[in-house]
Amino acid sequence: MTENIKVGYIGLGLMGKPMAVNLLNAGYPVVVHNRSREVVKDLVSQGAEEAFNPREVAEAADVVFTNLPDSPDVELVVLGEQGVIEGAHQGMIYVDNSTIKPHTARLIADKMAPQGVQCLDAPVSGGDIGAQQGTLAIMVGGPEEALDKVRPLLDVLGESITHVGGSGAGQIAKAANQIMVAAQMVGMAELMIMAKQAGADPQKVIQAIQGGAAQCWTLDVKPERLFKGNRQPGFKAYMQEKDLNIVMETAREYGAPLPAAAVHAQLYQAMLQLGMENLDNSAVIGVIEKLAGTALLEE
Amino acid sequence: MTENIKVGYIGLGLMGKPMAVNLLNAGYPVVVHNRSREVVKDLVSQGAEEAFNPREVAEAADVVFTNLPDSPDVELVVLGEQGVIEGAHQGMIYVDNSTIKPHTARLIADKMAPQGVQCLDAPVSGGDIGAQQGTLAIMVGGPEEALDKVRPLLDVLGESITHVGGSGAGQIAKAANQIMVAAQMVGMAELMIMAKQAGADPQKVIQAIQGGAAQCWTLDVKPERLFKGNRQPGFKAYMQEKDLNIVMETAREYGAPLPAAAVHAQLYQAMLQLGMENLDNSAVIGVIEKLAGTALLEE
Repeated sequence: MTENIKVGYIGLGLMGKPMAVNLLNAGYPVVVHNRSREVVKDLVSQGAEEAFNPREVAEAADVVFTNLPDSPDVELVVLGEQGVIEGAHQGMIYVDNSTIKPHTARLIADKMAPQGVQCLDAPVSGGDIGAQQGTLAIMVGGPEEALDKVRPLLDVLGESITHVGGSGAGQIAKAANQIMVAAQMVGMAELMIMAKQAGADPQKVIQAIQGGAAQCWTLDVKPERLFKGNRQPGFKAYMQEKDLNIVMETAREYGAPLPAAAVHAQLYQAMLQLGMENLDNSAVIGVIEKLAGTALLEE
Repeated sequence: MTENIKVGYIGLGLMGKPMAVNLLNAGYPVVVHNRSREVVKDLVSQGAEEAFNPREVAEAADVVFTNLPDSPDVELVVLGEQGVIEGAHQGMIYVDNSTIKPHTARLIADKMAPQGVQCLDAPVSGGDIGAQQGTLAIMVGGPEEALDKVRPLLDVLGESITHVGGSGAGQIAKAANQIMVAAQMVGMAELMIMAKQAGADPQKVIQAIQGGAAQCWTLDVKPERLFKGNRQPGFKAYMQEKDLNIVMETAREYGAPLPAAAVHAQLYQAMLQLGMENLDNSAVIGVIEKLAGTALLEE
């Protein structure tokens, strides 16, 4: 596949928009669609071509990307009326950058196969900053042959591209990632509040432990923000909650009881109930504060 | 305090023995005591002086160390019959390298103060290798003035010495450390078994996520061992369980409900019931395997 390939991008949100822009700026012709039209006009002014539904994108493009909030959104945009599947054609490759259920990724791959379409589930991590800078980590499931063909495009979007396995394996890796991220976020929250309640300075405790066996990205990066009273995202709590829901549904579908992840999922669900849904995922400490009747920064 | 200070060391186990040896090798006169006598004879052959109970150690030494399994052991050796307190004298400094409850550390400091003894709780992390090589991380609670006096000794034992705060704060930092270590160990176990059950190669999943937001010491170090079928310690599961018991008792005493740490404590308790107590703390994956009716390495 050469640089003459035509790209489609559906879902121009916080992540999708900068990713589509990066593809445009790399010189690819890009046809775009989004439910709200303002961002489409913005991209058209930057040289993109406009489409009015997912079918039109698929008809026009060799490689179609989606980047949507959750599994039902992807299912609707790909398999629904005027969906990608209606414009699909032999040799087209479909790449989903959304974070959705592995089960849904596999379902879509199965439905698209008879149209001669190869599907890659390719969720990303690295946030909106990574999307803007083209430094995302991309976890890919699906046929390696299809990945080889779209790799030049993924190289524009991300810095590390890992082929994890067959269809759904990219989503499984992303779910696995979110299990560990939630474990670290909740662990950090619990240890800080325990330390405070027991009468030690949480900031000194973090200093004492962050270089040892407890070392993690979360302890390296998040305490500084929390000690300044900054709980703004970052990665929003309602996205973490959604991803943990994917984890728990996937664990149930495939038979993996996850006692600790289940607790983390509930604590993030509590954030939604407590009006903390738009805070950073590290702000789960707010739930532990409520349980303990204290606050990290109160004297 | 000069290098003429006389050191006492009580509790010559996996950790205590190499730590006492390092103090001897650094040129300090060391008087030692241990319930089982063989290790005492060994140290005497290396130049240590023998004592027959904790009181005798305290009578002979300027700085008395203990390194014992759990809170009741320390309480008995320090405050019990023929205990350290009976041989305590004005200006003596007592340093506890055990991992015990912050509450017990504070109790002991209170009881020793009238004897003119300053107490430091100074739990370590870094394992038996760190003890042998003198590269431990030491988390210290208690009067800074006492820490300044014994710092040359701690520099022999460890690489990083952090003064966390007043009495008990060293133990609080160690408990905090164990909250995060357990969170990472259980998170790793859950994500590997979820990945396997959902049909992805856990090894590829680990590769895909270990450089991102999930990065941690546990994911850096432990998967390689587990994929080779190696669940030997390392850090023994029954020690992790004991430390999580300290976490939960401390959290209850000082008022910090810890929903996730509570689950981790139960999973490590299950390891004791399943005969996994002498395996590595990463072998908690064995409990998740039991729950899922699968095994990480089974085809």
